[in-house]
Amino acid sequence: MLSPALAEPQSGLVSQAPLFQAGKYRILALVFDDYETLDLHGPIEMLGHMPNAEIKLVAAKDVVRSYQGPRVVADCLTNALYECDLFIIPGGLGTRTLVNDAALINWMERQVALSQSVFTICTGTALIAKTKVMNGLKATTNKMAYPWVTSLNEHIVWQPKARWVDDGKFLTSSGVSAGTDAALYWVAKLHGDKEARRIQRLTEYQWINDANNDPYAAHFDL
Amino acid sequence: MLSPALAEPQSGLVSQAPLFQAGKYRILALVFDDYETLDLHGPIEMLGHMPNAEIKLVAAKDVVRSYQGPRVVADCLTNALYECDLFIIPGGLGTRTLVNDAALINWMERQVALSQSVFTICTGTALIAKTKVMNGLKATTNKMAYPWVTSLNEHIVWQPKARWVDDGKFLTSSGVSAGTDAALYWVAKLHGDKEARRIQRLTEYQWINDANNDPYAAHFDL
Repeated sequence: MLSPALAEPQSGLVSQAPLFQAGKYRILALVFDDYETLDLHGPIEMLGHMPNAEIKLVAAKDVVRSYQGPRVVADCLTNALYECDLFIIPGGLGTRTLVNDAALINWMERQVALSQSVFTICTGTALIAKTKVMNGLKATTNKMAYPWVTSLNEHIVWQPKARWVDDGKFLTSSGVSAGTDAALYWVAKLHGDKEARRIQRLTEYQWINDANNDPYAAHFDL
Repeated sequence: MLSPALAEPQSGLVSQAPLFQAGKYRILALVFDDYETLDLHGPIEMLGHMPNAEIKLVAAKDVVRSYQGPRVVADCLTNALYECDLFIIPGGLGTRTLVNDAALINWMERQVALSQSVFTICTGTALIAKTKVMNGLKATTNKMAYPWVTSLNEHIVWQPKARWVDDGKFLTSSGVSAGTDAALYWVAKLHGDKEARRIQRLTEYQWINDANNDPYAAHFDL
């Protein structure tokens, strides 16, 4: 059962209409207070330029604040589950307390089951590590927070040196900016390299398309 | 005079309290429907990790939608002016119509006068080009939209090959991702290279700290 505290509508901004239009590539991203700005918005930038993508935010309340201050509006709440093609879980300081939120972790486990693929960025991997859905699979995370995140689940096959890791249903990335690189990788996986390069040019991004290029692993002595 | 259409409170989310806390480095960012996600959130990520930074969003209405879909909440409205240290103007498809919004351009000109520094990203430079505040100064912009943006003001000394341009009060950057690089440059300018490198590591960013490294100028044959 979900705790009532998981859903606190405040201002009537959350629509009751169907979440996604028919025929879209349905991207649902979790947000919470003190999420890390670029963890979320880097991937949104790149995935949002894919043909037919539709992006919605899900949260425990209708307005949440990033660690950097600005606020976003949720399109739907964690008091329900949503069929989607890609479920995105960003990281940020907010995950330090959320890993202990049993109701949220329970919701996530059920939301993952309804999601075709799952993409975690940075310490967003800590939230997925608190479920059992990645047990036996390979994953990576933020290198500065590596000891903490990996301590949460010994059944995940942690990769200390990787910009991102693709293990079937689950794409996990290293810290913050690595999520943007991994998102372009995802575009290439779905639509081919030409489409990823089109979006790279459109956004004048300096994409390093190499999952093994992880300078921060060495930096933090992993 | 401002048009009444410039301020349309919808849900009571915009506070009437003083915008910034005393002693903060006051960052005010303009947002509008169809702003480009990373234009705004890349710089917010980097600048938001500076010591003492406070970031607020200003808009013509209290909830605006990015080109990629997700919505942000304004902290204040364009029916008033705000003293700040850094005024950020992102780009995006929304600028194509906003350049013809005389009331907004008038507000921007007066807001720039109250801002210590101004930082435009991508086609955000189109909005500043519609004012006279950069006449005689050097600037750059998105390379794909270069012919359009530069056509708006022949008195700006346009730089066809630059990741970003610093001309005193005004920092202008190339397309989308270039704003993130320019933001780290701004951190280094204010707090030194060590602080910029600290934030680069924290965000696992692959920063190319070279304003002259602009591969996209060549790409679009400028």
